[in-house]
Amino acid sequence: MGGVSTTERERVPKQDRSRATRQRLLEAAVACLAEHGWAGSTVAAVAERAGVSRGAAQHHFPTREDLFTAAVEYVAEERSTALRALFPDGPAERHAVVAALVDLYTGPLFRAALHLWVAASDEEQLRGRVTELEARVGRETHRIAVDLLGADETRPGARESVQGLLDMARGLGLANLLTDDTARRQRVVAQWAALLDQSLGRDPGGNAGGNPG
Amino acid sequence: MGGVSTTERERVPKQDRSRATRQRLLEAAVACLAEHGWAGSTVAAVAERAGVSRGAAQHHFPTREDLFTAAVEYVAEERSTALRALFPDGPAERHAVVAALVDLYTGPLFRAALHLWVAASDEEQLRGRVTELEARVGRETHRIAVDLLGADETRPGARESVQGLLDMARGLGLANLLTDDTARRQRVVAQWAALLDQSLGRDPGGNAGGNPG
Repeated sequence: MGGVSTTERERVPKQDRSRATRQRLLEAAVACLAEHGWAGSTVAAVAERAGVSRGAAQHHFPTREDLFTAAVEYVAEERSTALRALFPDGPAERHAVVAALVDLYTGPLFRAALHLWVAASDEEQLRGRVTELEARVGRETHRIAVDLLGADETRPGARESVQGLLDMARGLGLANLLTDDTARRQRVVAQWAALLDQSLGRDPGGNAGGNPG
Repeated sequence: MGGVSTTERERVPKQDRSRATRQRLLEAAVACLAEHGWAGSTVAAVAERAGVSRGAAQHHFPTREDLFTAAVEYVAEERSTALRALFPDGPAERHAVVAALVDLYTGPLFRAALHLWVAASDEEQLRGRVTELEARVGRETHRIAVDLLGADETRPGARESVQGLLDMARGLGLANLLTDDTARRQRVVAQWAALLDQSLGRDPGGNAGGNPG
């Protein structure tokens, strides 16, 4: 996120530089939202944090709503990619998958998304955008969860079991907002992963033994 | 919440009037927080909403933090009392209890508490107060849930099952913040009530037949 030297700037094609600037702005926007909330998050504050001129920031993101919804979406996509990369062979041991899903809701992205979400509940011009964004991110997270848990959604109750698990993950994220809730969370995750096993049937990764690499 | 006529004022002892003023302020504070968030919630705004002078409001609640943490605590207590009153005979049919517990997290109190919670994650002087408040309210809600679900906490996993259920209820409240999530929520509640039954053992109200009154 530091400055880029003049020589480097000349070597990098203009389009790549524009993409890098955009990415720096998005990452700075999520960090800003997580640390200062919606009230403390402006395009100017993010531009400064990213080391980008205010004009360049506004060229990429004309409004505050554009910047922050794009930022949460960008990081959510990064996070989904990282989650799939954790289990490259698809369905895996259920407890590990449940723990990884729950972890999605305890980091800075969840804090940032939560600030955006709560602000959207009070602000009309943000509400529609965030509702749409959350639906999109929610569908994608559900899809990944179904895949990695090896859930058969034609089985009665399987779909609702996965949905409830993701709702629980969100609630656990909220419980972790003010204090470190890790120890309690791990116990809850272990218990509900066991209950989920009963609901979804055979653990697809339960008998797989050690995972190489 | 309207004004009180002079004749009435004279009939009501001073102490009762003070208590009624306090209660009006607390209710107005929760409504204000739910509608306008922390940024839009000041002692002056609440005093005006409650029809109380700013001086009187400050007599009851010297600081903004005092007023809003007391408000969330007051309404949480009212809510606990109402929940116990719904099931006067103690342990009841599990699905009904799970639905009632989940309902705690979908109304204006949850919205107000969420605003306070999120604000506390950014504001040092609020953080300690809200952390303590949430721990107290959380313990009380857990106690009620254990009672009404007829959960035996000496049974392995029972405690974590109840905790996970309350985490899920919180997550479902979050999912209901921007859009009406009722239909999906009812399906998730039905499925997780069934999973909880497997974890906690016999449904204490399952064979009780019709509930008179």
